[in-house]
Amino acid sequence: MTEVAGKVRPYMSMSVDGFITGPDDGPDRGLGVNGERLHAWLSDGCVDPVSHRPAGSGANAEVFDEAMATGAVVTGRRTFDHAGGWAGDHHDGVPVFVLTRSVPDEPATGHVRFVTDVRSAVAQAREAAGGRDVMMHGASAAVACLAAGQLDEIELHVVPVLLGQGRRLFDGLPPDQVELELLRSREGSGVLHLRYRVVGGGRS
Amino acid sequence: MTEVAGKVRPYMSMSVDGFITGPDDGPDRGLGVNGERLHAWLSDGCVDPVSHRPAGSGANAEVFDEAMATGAVVTGRRTFDHAGGWAGDHHDGVPVFVLTRSVPDEPATGHVRFVTDVRSAVAQAREAAGGRDVMMHGASAAVACLAAGQLDEIELHVVPVLLGQGRRLFDGLPPDQVELELLRSREGSGVLHLRYRVVGGGRS
Repeated sequence: MTEVAGKVRPYMSMSVDGFITGPDDGPDRGLGVNGERLHAWLSDGCVDPVSHRPAGSGANAEVFDEAMATGAVVTGRRTFDHAGGWAGDHHDGVPVFVLTRSVPDEPATGHVRFVTDVRSAVAQAREAAGGRDVMMHGASAAVACLAAGQLDEIELHVVPVLLGQGRRLFDGLPPDQVELELLRSREGSGVLHLRYRVVGGGRS
Repeated sequence: MTEVAGKVRPYMSMSVDGFITGPDDGPDRGLGVNGERLHAWLSDGCVDPVSHRPAGSGANAEVFDEAMATGAVVTGRRTFDHAGGWAGDHHDGVPVFVLTRSVPDEPATGHVRFVTDVRSAVAQAREAAGGRDVMMHGASAAVACLAAGQLDEIELHVVPVLLGQGRRLFDGLPPDQVELELLRSREGSGVLHLRYRVVGGGRS
């Protein structure tokens, strides 16, 4: 039986006009000014205070569970720092590969490993995930991964709001068009989940 | 019986990363460099050479028919000029209201009327449409209409491609967030049709 390789896939909440944060995002404000609107779907209705899982059995909970079933995380340094490094454990103790220009002097804590090369980071994450999917974190990391032909899919949580300003999805993309293919579309409460395959640019 | 008022609604083809044209759009290149990718869904499969209607009975043909059933058009001057004024007839001889800063000296041709005030243009279009919906054309006109609280809905044709550059949907929006509500989601061949209601900002 052929082993099915896991997919490398960012999960990004995005406004209808293409923003993934409000303006002026920073270390103490990862989603920018009023950008928390983009994560409202995660707390729509009851949320388990420990797991942060959206309640119920709808599309939101299922998509959340899929994301938490990934076997490794690749993240940009900026996103990692803004999130306080998730205290060393993003979910379930899976390895977290942090793309960075320079590896910090102090040793990484928890399940974190710093990597300077995007291909190496993705290769290590695929290996560590052992057939499970790999979660990408951070827009710049996703762009670097896309440019390196290492992004298989994109999961967008399209939030019904126009932000008008902030950080854009895949800002700084090379000028070549990247063809996608819609794999699935699922309506959740207060959000539309779209999964695209990267055609040509990805490994799939 | 209460008369059901028509909705004012732009129909916009948009890339997954939020662009409605490629770069360098202009009079002889309304969709910008390589921006015609955004309209490929309109010619996916057979297209009637006279009506330009997408073939078949799928979502693409139905959405096209709905757009062509609108009873008036409100368009920005830039879009109007880029399109050569549709030779005075956008579709079926419905009135075309062109938002402009200055009304041209020469009389308007065909079914075209130049209007300098957005509220007046929309009011005239609603009246002329007689209960049918009103098609908005042009990103700036849609932004002006939105800012004036006159945009009821937005129909987006989300094309599975990342453009990375070009003209953005609703660029120059005021900094206030605009809440939307997803009314329907329909998968067509090579495109996803999303209809949103403008919550609060619109007239509906």
